[in-house]
Amino acid sequence: MAKMKAVQVQEAGGDLQVVELDVPEPGPGEVRINVKACGICHSDAFVKEGTFPGLEYPRVPGHEVTGIVDAVGDGVEMWAEGDRVGVGWHGGHDFTCPACRDGDFVNCQNGKVTGISFDGGYAEYMCAPAEAVARMPDDLNFDEAAPLLCAGITTFNALRNSGLTPGARVAVQGVGGLGHLGIQYAASFGCEVIALSRGTDKKDLAHKLGAHHFIDTTSGDTAEQLQALGGADVILATAPSSQAITDVADGLARDGKLMVVAATADPIEISPMQLIMGRKSIQGWPSGSADDSEDTLDFSALNDVAPMIETFPLTEAAEAYDRMINNEARFRVVLVPEG
Amino acid sequence: MAKMKAVQVQEAGGDLQVVELDVPEPGPGEVRINVKACGICHSDAFVKEGTFPGLEYPRVPGHEVTGIVDAVGDGVEMWAEGDRVGVGWHGGHDFTCPACRDGDFVNCQNGKVTGISFDGGYAEYMCAPAEAVARMPDDLNFDEAAPLLCAGITTFNALRNSGLTPGARVAVQGVGGLGHLGIQYAASFGCEVIALSRGTDKKDLAHKLGAHHFIDTTSGDTAEQLQALGGADVILATAPSSQAITDVADGLARDGKLMVVAATADPIEISPMQLIMGRKSIQGWPSGSADDSEDTLDFSALNDVAPMIETFPLTEAAEAYDRMINNEARFRVVLVPEG
Amino acid sequence: MAKMKAVQVQEAGGDLQVVELDVPEPGPGEVRINVKACGICHSDAFVKEGTFPGLEYPRVPGHEVTGIVDAVGDGVEMWAEGDRVGVGWHGGHDFTCPACRDGDFVNCQNGKVTGISFDGGYAEYMCAPAEAVARMPDDLNFDEAAPLLCAGITTFNALRNSGLTPGARVAVQGVGGLGHLGIQYAASFGCEVIALSRGTDKKDLAHKLGAHHFIDTTSGDTAEQLQALGGADVILATAPSSQAITDVADGLARDGKLMVVAATADPIEISPMQLIMGRKSIQGWPSGSADDSEDTLDFSALNDVAPMIETFPLTEAAEAYDRMINNEARFRVVLVPEG
Amino acid sequence: MAKMKAVQVQEAGGDLQVVELDVPEPGPGEVRINVKACGICHSDAFVKEGTFPGLEYPRVPGHEVTGIVDAVGDGVEMWAEGDRVGVGWHGGHDFTCPACRDGDFVNCQNGKVTGISFDGGYAEYMCAPAEAVARMPDDLNFDEAAPLLCAGITTFNALRNSGLTPGARVAVQGVGGLGHLGIQYAASFGCEVIALSRGTDKKDLAHKLGAHHFIDTTSGDTAEQLQALGGADVILATAPSSQAITDVADGLARDGKLMVVAATADPIEISPMQLIMGRKSIQGWPSGSADDSEDTLDFSALNDVAPMIETFPLTEAAEAYDRMINNEARFRVVLVPEG
Ligand SMILES: [Zn+2]
Ligand SMILES: [Zn+2]
Ligand SMILES: [Zn+2]
Ligand SMILES: [Zn+2]
Repeated sequence: MAKMKAVQVQEAGGDLQVVELDVPEPGPGEVRINVKACGICHSDAFVKEGTFPGLEYPRVPGHEVTGIVDAVGDGVEMWAEGDRVGVGWHGGHDFTCPACRDGDFVNCQNGKVTGISFDGGYAEYMCAPAEAVARMPDDLNFDEAAPLLCAGITTFNALRNSGLTPGARVAVQGVGGLGHLGIQYAASFGCEVIALSRGTDKKDLAHKLGAHHFIDTTSGDTAEQLQALGGADVILATAPSSQAITDVADGLARDGKLMVVAATADPIEISPMQLIMGRKSIQGWPSGSADDSEDTLDFSALNDVAPMIETFPLTEAAEAYDRMINNEARFRVVLVPEG
Repeated sequence: MAKMKAVQVQEAGGDLQVVELDVPEPGPGEVRINVKACGICHSDAFVKEGTFPGLEYPRVPGHEVTGIVDAVGDGVEMWAEGDRVGVGWHGGHDFTCPACRDGDFVNCQNGKVTGISFDGGYAEYMCAPAEAVARMPDDLNFDEAAPLLCAGITTFNALRNSGLTPGARVAVQGVGGLGHLGIQYAASFGCEVIALSRGTDKKDLAHKLGAHHFIDTTSGDTAEQLQALGGADVILATAPSSQAITDVADGLARDGKLMVVAATADPIEISPMQLIMGRKSIQGWPSGSADDSEDTLDFSALNDVAPMIETFPLTEAAEAYDRMINNEARFRVVLVPEG
Repeated sequence: MAKMKAVQVQEAGGDLQVVELDVPEPGPGEVRINVKACGICHSDAFVKEGTFPGLEYPRVPGHEVTGIVDAVGDGVEMWAEGDRVGVGWHGGHDFTCPACRDGDFVNCQNGKVTGISFDGGYAEYMCAPAEAVARMPDDLNFDEAAPLLCAGITTFNALRNSGLTPGARVAVQGVGGLGHLGIQYAASFGCEVIALSRGTDKKDLAHKLGAHHFIDTTSGDTAEQLQALGGADVILATAPSSQAITDVADGLARDGKLMVVAATADPIEISPMQLIMGRKSIQGWPSGSADDSEDTLDFSALNDVAPMIETFPLTEAAEAYDRMINNEARFRVVLVPEG
Repeated sequence: MAKMKAVQVQEAGGDLQVVELDVPEPGPGEVRINVKACGICHSDAFVKEGTFPGLEYPRVPGHEVTGIVDAVGDGVEMWAEGDRVGVGWHGGHDFTCPACRDGDFVNCQNGKVTGISFDGGYAEYMCAPAEAVARMPDDLNFDEAAPLLCAGITTFNALRNSGLTPGARVAVQGVGGLGHLGIQYAASFGCEVIALSRGTDKKDLAHKLGAHHFIDTTSGDTAEQLQALGGADVILATAPSSQAITDVADGLARDGKLMVVAATADPIEISPMQLIMGRKSIQGWPSGSADDSEDTLDFSALNDVAPMIETFPLTEAAEAYDRMINNEARFRVVLVPEG
């Protein structure tokens, strides 16, 4: 049986270990992907630290996967060897629960998560349910496309579903892995983009990515500064800090929406009064389905949106993970099995 | 000059005093209304206690007014003597600020509030800007229609703008002045209505008003009980308690929206995680414009929605106010000048 | 092998013949339903006359089916013997085409139609793909529920997706099989309902069903009469006459939508000028998915919406069909196998 | 009294005559604008040919006006001398009709049209109601901005209100005065843009303007070619030909919308069947309010959208008009009083 290199976590709190495993065989309804690139996401900490309910070890993390289909399981007709594809956080659904029957696959009661429910993309090969796989346009390269399957879809999908109309004023809170994509997407929608970041380090970069304004959130009252620009129709909160989100809420314009995408458990605090004056709202948005991933990839190819990445071979997965978890990367770290 | 009876507050914290005043003359762009009924609203405490910014005394409170136009000021062509009308919280706008030019009169930067910016309906006569006046259908009576101008429009407008579709599952938190109208409106939209109330006192009443389910919020975990019913597509939070709102948020269904209408300054606490799982949102809704008031009155007449009221003459305004502020009324207290 | 009574069409233009057939066995992914009632729909003429592309004979028509699951095929976990269910026009989908991956099952590229792609409900038993089956609330009876699976879902789903808000003014064109349900649904949404019908025969009935106004379309210019009532926010066009639809278009209010549900091939004629003044639109709506069917059934049970029906045993299918095709029925004809 | 040069039509069917008139004085609620540029629009033919109901002569046409406020009438506080402004088709409203009270100023029952209800921009000076005036960003020049007040707002507003989401596939039918702006706006929204034009003359230009695909509508079945690209989510029909619109309708994707902006009286022909399969719709869109004009101008400045223009002095208005009416201009003709 063929062997492959992979990176595994053996137990909650364990290290990222480079191991040799059997190349997996796709079961019925699955495809096998020859992984070309896999982004490292902050959510991979769920696997490393064991904080996701029901996680079983050992586990290969990774849910920002791009590659080429190289085998298909029984009953799979929509994919063929050679297809260029991606897999993201959403790792499959049951088609039969109430959410699925409503077409809302992301909220499937029995939904799977790539790299958590089954082995993910920190490996030369992985298998995934056919319904979790997204087609990739020819003109995207594997390395840059990988982070689009999670950081990309999350910001793209949250923004396009925020109710914004072209020309809206959009503030992107945090210029990091998610935020530097959010700025590009908002600018590509024709919006007036305001980047919010601590300090001025990222000011020039934010403008290069398409931001029209930059606010250093340590330089005064951010909400007031947003209001001075007319107020934000949408604030995309990418920073995993509920305190920071609480602090910008008053920067919303009439009918403004604060769109929250960084999953943290600390409470945002906001009063009815703040929401009622101007009919404001706060909403959460998870990533999306394979269909949403395809929309994200197509849009990114059409409008030249790409993440800034640092690539590492599988053998340096631990160092790569450290750069991510310590916020040192600009901005997404990508493992390249053949790198 | 003709005199009239009115109820005035002389200073912050002062009593509701019955006084004799000149019948006011309508200025340019205003109409004078012979007041037939005026509801007492919890927000009248702003006037009594002096907690609204910029309030000037003495002031006649009252923003749930119904009556008959009996004089029109210069330049007013849309109203004539004898018109049956109502006036609510929104007391006029400037037509020229950015919000007004966008047609969003409620959010006018120079908006006035009835009974706060100018004397309101605790009187035999009052004047109001023509744009703040709403036409009343013939088949509504003055007494019952009065609370529709604030309690009614607030719940009707919040619900119809909540994104609900007919048949949605709607929880109404609080069976009081606002809630007992919210239940009726939601039922009239064809929704499956769940009433939430402390204790079981109001269970039978809630069912009579159209609720299909009743949850005693002291009897266990309300969010869990909502989920057992399938989750709420909309929760209309009428209770002025941010803690209570915080407690029910997890009762939302996928894509559910928590609609907040009771203006309090205490913070709701909700985490990004709670919002992201299921794409949930929280929104605030203020009352509405005169046009929204007309929609509310028309809908209420068409679908036989009416508040439960207790009526008092102007001379008993202080007792009437006390019943309201102490939550003793079932459910709205209405002053009737000729009563 | 067990036998059953059924009604078959042998060839395009052939009669509805009562025959004895083997009780069918459910294949993988299918369920067998013991048919309790099956409505006769105008679209059954596709089968009788052979006007649906790709139709194969002999064929048992019928896509307004209610009954009880009495056997399940391999791989079916969501249904069990004894479940009360219904099946409508949408007869299954492939889960893998672009529409399905977007959750839009009705527009599946390989979608099946009940009673056309496979044998339908003019029989004691039928089999259907599990994904095409809808759960039925306990408090609906089989006979009255049957037409809800096509006439009901079509009008309910078109109306709730028309963008109407509660209290909207809705005109229902045609008081027949579809229209008499459309009136009930619109009234149950709290709308102001205007029934349009040729002559005055159905005036009293229309009011009983919930209409607030009635316009005899032979009595003058219908569009003008609609405008005299304020204009229709939504016109639900149920009459299969493009000329009639053309004639009412100018009865729309600002932002009004003409919703078309009766599938005919004759052109509606409308000018850009008519559409531009007031931002009006025309849209078509097909029935819906199994999930939409459940919403329809649940809503109907909650709000006491039911069709007026005439029931016939299977042996009188030909006479029953004639009543339908000649517009003699008031309003839906239902075959009852055990009748 | 000061005199000015202007271009007048004396009677229905009359010529565009250069005349000397008194510089007009702004009445109450009006501003006077020193006209810097005025686009010539196809709708100016209403004035020249006398086909607009109620038109009075002599009349100065022109509703694509940019310039500088140089006097304000009584009661005007929102404008001051020196303000850079524009005026479009919508020439004022009454603030009191049902549409206005709903914030829908464009559909005012007593709405005025610039250059039709009162003298327009083919002159050195003109007066306009304050509510019809839009503020212009500093970084737009007067000549290029002028056509944005009608051709620009019409295409921008129709597209942004079409329900499109970023990345949608948008076909723009006609590469002319409206279409060449529509292509730029759609591309600036991040959409995949398909230009439709007769012949291949404008192919290179269409791509330069941002189109990703080009279809020569004389080269085969346009609807089929659109379907081969996946179908259009939105078709913006700018060509004033109902036959041409009829021909492309089948090029819509699922849930596609055909947005009609060129006001002609010939009927589009479309069958219920065509609309029902795929839930398609047709909608008309008029230009917009002053607020929409500001959005258009701001968006155009932010995203570098500008019309291609040919400029003429007022004295050559007749020749300029002929180029427009004969479809010879590429693409908008602009009169420059000081030119
Ligand atoms: Zn599921
Ligand atoms: Zn204002
Ligand atoms: Zn499909
Ligand atoms: Zn008006």
